[in-house]
This record gives sequence, C-alpha cells and structure tokens, in this order.
Amino acid sequence: MNYFSSNFKLGILGGGQLGKMLLYSTRKFDIYTAVLEASDEAPCKIACNEFHLGDLMNFDAVYNFGKQVDVLTIEIENVNVDALEALEKEGVNVYPSSKTLRIIQNKGKQKLFYTDNNIPTAPFSRFAYTSEIEESINNGGLQLPFVWKSAQFGYDGQGVKIVKSLDDLKGLPNVECIAENLVPFKNELAVIVARNPSGETKTYPVVEMEFHPEANQVEYVICPARIDAALARKAEDIALKTSKAFNHVGLLAVEMFQTQNDDILVNEVAPRPHNSGHQTIEASYTSQFEQHIRAILDLPLGRTGSKVGGVMVNLVGAEGHSGQVVYQNIENIMTMDGVTPHIYGKKQTRPFRKMGHVTIVNEDVNEARRVAEEVKKSIKVISE
Amino acid sequence: MNYFSSNFKLGILGGGQLGKMLLYSTRKFDIYTAVLEASDEAPCKIACNEFHLGDLMNFDAVYNFGKQVDVLTIEIENVNVDALEALEKEGVNVYPSSKTLRIIQNKGKQKLFYTDNNIPTAPFSRFAYTSEIEESINNGGLQLPFVWKSAQFGYDGQGVKIVKSLDDLKGLPNVECIAENLVPFKNELAVIVARNPSGETKTYPVVEMEFHPEANQVEYVICPARIDAALARKAEDIALKTSKAFNHVGLLAVEMFQTQNDDILVNEVAPRPHNSGHQTIEASYTSQFEQHIRAILDLPLGRTGSKVGGVMVNLVGAEGHSGQVVYQNIENIMTMDGVTPHIYGKKQTRPFRKMGHVTIVNEDVNEARRVAEEVKKSIKVISE
Repeated sequence: MNYFSSNFKLGILGGGQLGKMLLYSTRKFDIYTAVLEASDEAPCKIACNEFHLGDLMNFDAVYNFGKQVDVLTIEIENVNVDALEALEKEGVNVYPSSKTLRIIQNKGKQKLFYTDNNIPTAPFSRFAYTSEIEESINNGGLQLPFVWKSAQFGYDGQGVKIVKSLDDLKGLPNVECIAENLVPFKNELAVIVARNPSGETKTYPVVEMEFHPEANQVEYVICPARIDAALARKAEDIALKTSKAFNHVGLLAVEMFQTQNDDILVNEVAPRPHNSGHQTIEASYTSQFEQHIRAILDLPLGRTGSKVGGVMVNLVGAEGHSGQVVYQNIENIMTMDGVTPHIYGKKQTRPFRKMGHVTIVNEDVNEARRVAEEVKKSIKVISE
Repeated sequence: MNYFSSNFKLGILGGGQLGKMLLYSTRKFDIYTAVLEASDEAPCKIACNEFHLGDLMNFDAVYNFGKQVDVLTIEIENVNVDALEALEKEGVNVYPSSKTLRIIQNKGKQKLFYTDNNIPTAPFSRFAYTSEIEESINNGGLQLPFVWKSAQFGYDGQGVKIVKSLDDLKGLPNVECIAENLVPFKNELAVIVARNPSGETKTYPVVEMEFHPEANQVEYVICPARIDAALARKAEDIALKTSKAFNHVGLLAVEMFQTQNDDILVNEVAPRPHNSGHQTIEASYTSQFEQHIRAILDLPLGRTGSKVGGVMVNLVGAEGHSGQVVYQNIENIMTMDGVTPHIYGKKQTRPFRKMGHVTIVNEDVNEARRVAEEVKKSIKVISE
C-alpha cells in the first residue's frame, strides 16, 4: 500500500498528548490521519486530517470510526475491544490487536500471561473483589505487605496502593484486583520494543525511571540507564521475549524492576508510545512516535540508538493548584542548554495532572541529569 | 507576555513547507497560531489554530490578518510590505521588519545594502531594464560573462541566468535587474544567525551546499561544512555582521561564496527558516524552526551546536513528470540508518518542484554524505 499518497487513512483512538506527538510523524510523512476522541478540547484537535468526537468505550463509536480507516491504532488502552475484534474480522489492520489489548486491559490476565509464557514477574494472587482479600490474609493465603492493584482501568497512579495493614484496605474500591508481592528493587527500568507485521524487531536502549514517591508517577526518565552491559542485555532480552509472546505489532513499552540481586521482573507493559520514551524525540535517531508509525504501517524500522544522552522530566500540575494553567518560570528553563519544553495544550491544571514534559539532552547523560534537577526546581505548573 | 497561555496569537504569512515545519514548534510549545495563505491545499492547512485564505501581496488581506495577531512573521518574502509597515506603526511586532523585507525583496537594493555596510559581496551593476544591458556591454561598462538576476521575485532558480554571450540575453524578461560578476568559487556556504529583540544572538555551524547544475537548486546541504576552523570563523563573523547591519530579529540565513583564494562573499540572505537549515531538525540541539519561534517571541535562544553530522537532500520533482505525486522507493531509503524523509504534502509534482527533503544523520558526517548519495540514487519523485 502506498501510505505516502492519497487513498490511505490511518485511524488513532484517543486524542491526548501521545496522539498529539504521533501526529508530528504523520505530518512529517504526510500520512492522512483521523482521530476519534471524546473531548472537543483534546490536544489532537488540530494537526489531524479528521477529528471525530466519540466515546472510545462505545462499540458503535469505535466500530463506525474503524470502518473508515485502513490501519487503526491507539494512544490509550481503554477502548472498546469488542469493536476492534469485529473490525479485525472485517479486514481492518488493528495494531495493537484486540487479543493483546484484552490481556493488557486486565492486570490479572496480564500477570497470568507472564507466568504462562515464562516471563519473570513478581508473585501475585487474583481476587474477584477486594473484599475477599481480608479472608485470604486471615487464613494465611496472603502475607502483608503487598501491592493492591485494581485489575481494570488503572492509569497513572490510580488503582494502585501499598497495603501494609488491614486498615490500608479500607476505602479501596470493591473491584476485581490483584495482590502482588512487594518487591524491594534497586531500579525501575523500561525497554521499548518495536515490531512490524513483517517481523522486523528493534529495541531502544534500557532507560531508568525515578518515580515521585507520592504521586506514583514517573519523575525522571534517564537514557541510557546507568547500569552495566550484562544487566542491560538481560532487560532487553526479557523485553524481546515479552513482545514475541504477545506477537505484538507497533511499540511495546516493557516496564521492569531490577531487584536487589539483579533479577529482572516485568511489572507491566503498554502497547503504544510511552512516557518512558518521550526523550527519544530529542535524543534518539528515531523518535518512538515515528517508530510506532513505521511499525504499524509495516515500513522499515528506524535506528533506535541515541545521538546524545537524554533525560525526561514530567510536568505535572502542582499540588494546591486547579484551574487555568500557567507554566511558571518556563522562560528560565529555556535559558539552559539542551532543554526543550513540551506543552500538551490542556487548558486546566489540577494536582498531578500530566500537562507536559521537558527533555534535557547532553553528550554526557550525567550532565543532562544535573540540568534536569535544575529544571525540576525551576518550573512549576500552577493555576492563574 | 505569556505565550504559553491563551490570549496570545502568532501570525504566519505563508502556508508552505516552511510554515508547516514552523508549526511543529508552535504545536510543541502550544502557541496559538494563525496562518494566512492563498492556496486552500497548502501544507499548513492543518496544524495551525486558524487558517485564513488570502493573497499575501494584497494590502487589505495582510493588514486585516495582521491586526488580529500579537506577533507576525513570514515563511516567504513575497508579501505586501506596505501592510507590514502600517501594522508596525499600530504596534504589531513584525519580524522580520518591513524595512528588512524591503531591502531583501529587491536584489539591487540588497546588493547596495551590502556595499553600504562594508559586507563583502561580488561586484555588480544595476539596471532599470534588461534591455539596457546590451548597450552597457557595447560601451564597455559591463564585461561578459556575468550573472543576470531579476531584481524582484527571484526564487529557487527562477530569475537567475548566467550570461556568456549577447545571445543569452534573448528571452530574458525586460525587468529591473542586476548583472553580477561571475565569481569562480570553491564552495557555497551558509550560516544561519538567530537574534531575538533583546539582542541575544547565536549562529549555527557553517554548512556547505552542493547545487544541482541545471535547476540551480540546492541538492545537498552538509553540516558541518568540511572547511578549516579559520575559514568557518570568517564565514560566521560575516554572517553576524550582516545580521547586525539589518538589526534583524528571527532567523537570517546568509548564503556565501568561498572564492578560490578563500575570500567570503555574501550572495544573498533569507530572513526566515531556510533550506540550508532543514537538517537542524534531526542534527542540532535546537531546530531552526524552534529557534525562529524562540527568537521572534523574545524567548531565550536554544543551543545551536550539532548532536551528530547531518546531510540534507532536497526531494524535487523528476523531469518529465507532472501530476499526482508518487514517492518511488521511499521504503528503500527508510531501510538506511539515520534516514528521515519529510514529505511536504503537495499533491501535484512537476519538474524541479520542491516536494520534500530527506535528512541523513550519522556520528560521522562523511558517512552521512555517503548514505545521502544512496538516498539520492534511490528515491524518485514521479507522477502516477
């Protein structure tokens, strides 16, 4: 198929910041792109060729949109998978597949998938309802502490809680969930794997993630991770194995724990461009967004190495601020070498809402990390 | 002014490929942008916040558009300068200024400006009409050969001809023009200078340009130029002097000749992002498009150094092809390391029309240059 001429249409489910950054690449390649999104104020509103308003969880909305495109992808996992399955049966190329999304959408199924495929992951128990957990603790089937995770619709720190005592269970929603062993880890790592339908596969370098202790959101992503080559190789191999097990097409971001004795455990995956790959726009030979487009269109994959070291800082809404957003001191950080702010274009801020990110690049990743701290201290996402 | 919130509006005159690439940066910074353009099929049609149809040479169209914005810039020089002057008087920030554009729009005035400001340039004569040239040759006022250039509206090989005999004058339009000494040169070089209203100034590394012999269009841009440091310094100094003489704000691309005895002569300038800076998107710490936005909004300028070596190849329509465009072998070039095609999104090709460009980056600029030749041999812009 000739993607670079007319008569081809790419569809994206979701119109948030990931979609917005995907559109940089569709614009660069002049690929005709339609977006389906529920909010009329979404970051993708402009820069796509067609903007369709609709609920991503609604069968008809997704199905009717998907019928109009040749290749359909996502920028968010929470979409109507039954519609994707119906579209696949009718010949639409859907990447990631409905099968992959069904597994990923449910954390219980996702964890089982890892154990079924001999992919190392932290031990866990599944529960149909949170209310069943107390009994399991009482009869010795489950030990404290553990990590409680809602099986569905967990996103950015929602639906995850460390449970140290029975009291911590109070207030949790009574939903399908898992209880996962609390793994003491040295590092959180991630590897993005790209794979196209022809089977060409490439990995990006291992990145290191530092999380905000309260918000459970990534604070810094550091590329490359400051780990030794053997461990990096191990992480890459596990990421590749995971991608292969899913028979995945597009990007698969594999988040992992590096344990105290340097084992690698898969935490979770995202079948799309991911926060752990934003620095690729400035630091890599091929940005993750361009790579996702290349992969799902079965184009040759681009070089995944780094031109320079890269660090990414998330710009999240400051606590105590809700309302019309202001990026305080953004001009200050722009005086620093190798600093690029990305503003997603959301009009309203609220505590911990992802409003943008800043990439810091430098020949020396440690210097980039130092500047990143300056950036972090300087810029604040507040309300007017 | 807070550019990153609402209530600020940037205006761009022109909706071609340069505007399209400027919009990558306004999208990244979430800067509200309006575009005025005569063609409803222009590359900028999407990705701006507002698209206005109108003739850029029409006073009312430009004036009425400019009245609605806070900062006004251009992506093409051929705009109504009287309207810009009126807007400046009414407090709109216009970059480049009407004064700069008046000088640049007329090659005779531009050449005089260089001599008035002691900026080295090839000797020349001005003529009110091409028909006056023959007499000047006959009475010994002008020697053959020389380069005939139309004073106005020269663009990409239009309006330029090497005149070796009186016969070559036949068929030239009878317009205001200059006759410039034919300088035997080793290299064509270019330096892009960025300057903001606060006076902060930065230069990009000197690039080397190889021209297509027939079309008089740039075929390869090589960054950095393979010249010695002293000569590079000389070219940068002359570019800075030129920018200062114009008291320019935004980007100024200064095209220069390196003569046989390593003198530098200014050929012409462009007060905007330029073909000689396209490789900055992939190769530099700050792309020329982001830098232009930073400069005209009086933001701090970004780092201008290179992350890696970069070579740019223009994708122009092949001879003998007019009609619906096809990018033959584009998938081949995407298998090559560090290769990024940029497709401008023009639907119709014709011989020598600029349809896109390809950037090739590599740690080693000579390797990038080698791959660029492979790219050049492989991809063809043809019609269906």
